[in-house]
Amino acid sequence: MGELQLIEAIRDVLDAPGERVVRWTGDDAAVVRARPFAVTSIDTVAEGVHFDLSTHSPADVGHKALASALSDLAAMAAEAGEAYVSLALPESLATGDALQIVSGMATLAKLTGTTIAGGDVVRAATLVVTVSVTGWADSQDQLVGRDGATAGQALGVTGELGASGAGLMLLRRAVPSVDRSVTEALTGRHRRPEPRLAAGRALAHAGATAMIDLSDGIATDGRHLARESNVRLEIDIDALPLAPGVAEVAAAADRDAAELALTAGEDYELLFTIPPERWDAAASASDVPLTRLGSTLDGEGLHFTGGDAPDLDLLRGYEHL
Amino acid sequence: MGELQLIEAIRDVLDAPGERVVRWTGDDAAVVRARPFAVTSIDTVAEGVHFDLSTHSPADVGHKALASALSDLAAMAAEAGEAYVSLALPESLATGDALQIVSGMATLAKLTGTTIAGGDVVRAATLVVTVSVTGWADSQDQLVGRDGATAGQALGVTGELGASGAGLMLLRRAVPSVDRSVTEALTGRHRRPEPRLAAGRALAHAGATAMIDLSDGIATDGRHLARESNVRLEIDIDALPLAPGVAEVAAAADRDAAELALTAGEDYELLFTIPPERWDAAASASDVPLTRLGSTLDGEGLHFTGGDAPDLDLLRGYEHL
Repeated sequence: MGELQLIEAIRDVLDAPGERVVRWTGDDAAVVRARPFAVTSIDTVAEGVHFDLSTHSPADVGHKALASALSDLAAMAAEAGEAYVSLALPESLATGDALQIVSGMATLAKLTGTTIAGGDVVRAATLVVTVSVTGWADSQDQLVGRDGATAGQALGVTGELGASGAGLMLLRRAVPSVDRSVTEALTGRHRRPEPRLAAGRALAHAGATAMIDLSDGIATDGRHLARESNVRLEIDIDALPLAPGVAEVAAAADRDAAELALTAGEDYELLFTIPPERWDAAASASDVPLTRLGSTLDGEGLHFTGGDAPDLDLLRGYEHL
Repeated sequence: MGELQLIEAIRDVLDAPGERVVRWTGDDAAVVRARPFAVTSIDTVAEGVHFDLSTHSPADVGHKALASALSDLAAMAAEAGEAYVSLALPESLATGDALQIVSGMATLAKLTGTTIAGGDVVRAATLVVTVSVTGWADSQDQLVGRDGATAGQALGVTGELGASGAGLMLLRRAVPSVDRSVTEALTGRHRRPEPRLAAGRALAHAGATAMIDLSDGIATDGRHLARESNVRLEIDIDALPLAPGVAEVAAAADRDAAELALTAGEDYELLFTIPPERWDAAASASDVPLTRLGSTLDGEGLHFTGGDAPDLDLLRGYEHL
């Protein structure tokens, strides 16, 4: 199947765009009715680095590529708008698998109110999927950056941590198998992360002052937030909301569960700061549970309390590349 | 150098964004003040498919990736706005080369008034560069699609054809060398194509009814325009504005020059239709010469006249993937 036929087949997989999209596939570029502020992020996943086709279905790959891009919009509290998708496909990949990548993306797009409005399909030596997403806001006040935290605020996180990292270890058979339902839950969290779009908007509305999505883990992403806001984050290790089964998987791998949760990344939960008096309002408004991890202080970087405080130097060297 | 250090170094290469960009690198997503219509295209170039590092410098690769994306905005007559860049980098690529890719892009961005407002850097088994560009328009009337041509209009093209294809043959040493200055001009056109942003806007303003950029060549792109507009394009082979040296290179390769110009692609000129009475206004307004290739007729597909009309079945099978 050539490029043009594949593009036709992809078009058939996609839902018709909403009325905001004036032109889409079939033109040189998509045309969208704008709102006052465009919020855009581009994210790439590559075979052998961010996924393996031995552990991820093509639909998982599509889901993950779109989810990681949408997670950035969630962290800004933007409303999801359009996605533009580039597929760099090796010749060895079957056409049906390429369409499954798009199907996985289209399913998540529908769930999140995102329109896949354009794309590019090329050959490459390895499978690389890039998604650029644009969200919208009517005013800057609706959005939350990484730089708004000040000392004396509450530090919180959405949902659960460590599930994706533990799920990856299970997918790679790096640990003895654990209970089947736990395995399914953890590997599912790795293969199909959920961008916290609704929670991000709810947190912003409740008064969150800074947010970041946990793509690389708190050890890295927390440091970004601390640096951009020029504050110190004090994090209680004992408060980390470990997903069920994470402690068991970490123990089986002879790793510290907190260290796994702080560094494994790809949980795509939101780390945020908020004035303490706004916490209850945020917790009521969020569609996922919030956990208070600690506070912001004057200073810089991360400071861990409680538990077995992990080796900070080890964490400092952690990067996802 | 790790991902974070590389991102810092990239930030240093980029110009500060204009005042339209409210947030850029250092946040989860860029935030841009929108105008009423967002025009977006995503384009990918992959090593071994769209370029080779034996014939293209890293800066050429960056230029080409951005140019091919901007060319889509030119074909819509949008004003260039922001670019979002994904670099999938093999470990074998030196850090300096990665920065050169960004520098090549930044130079073209400056020339075209484009802000590189965000990006992603990941590891991959092969070099893949993806650029998503967003342009802007204040009304839909300012934009031109592929679908507006009707029978009885003039068919035209900007600039010269065949230069990129002939340049690629010279870069690959697929033909005996020709005059040095001709070689430099043709290979330069292949390595650093110019998106026709100003010409696209001028043509739209003068009344162009349909446009497409020639990324794959008239044999493919002309058919797209004909299909979307539901017209037949009559093209005079003898009118094709071959770039200087194309005939010489084609002859040396024992190929028909017109066939090369129609199929080699990557000239990134604009093919357009316009009411004949608007031709002179368009020619006056365009910053590059326009050539009238023929007319639109009732019917479908392409119809060649004059010259040695090329084998249409051969052209029909031509695709860029």
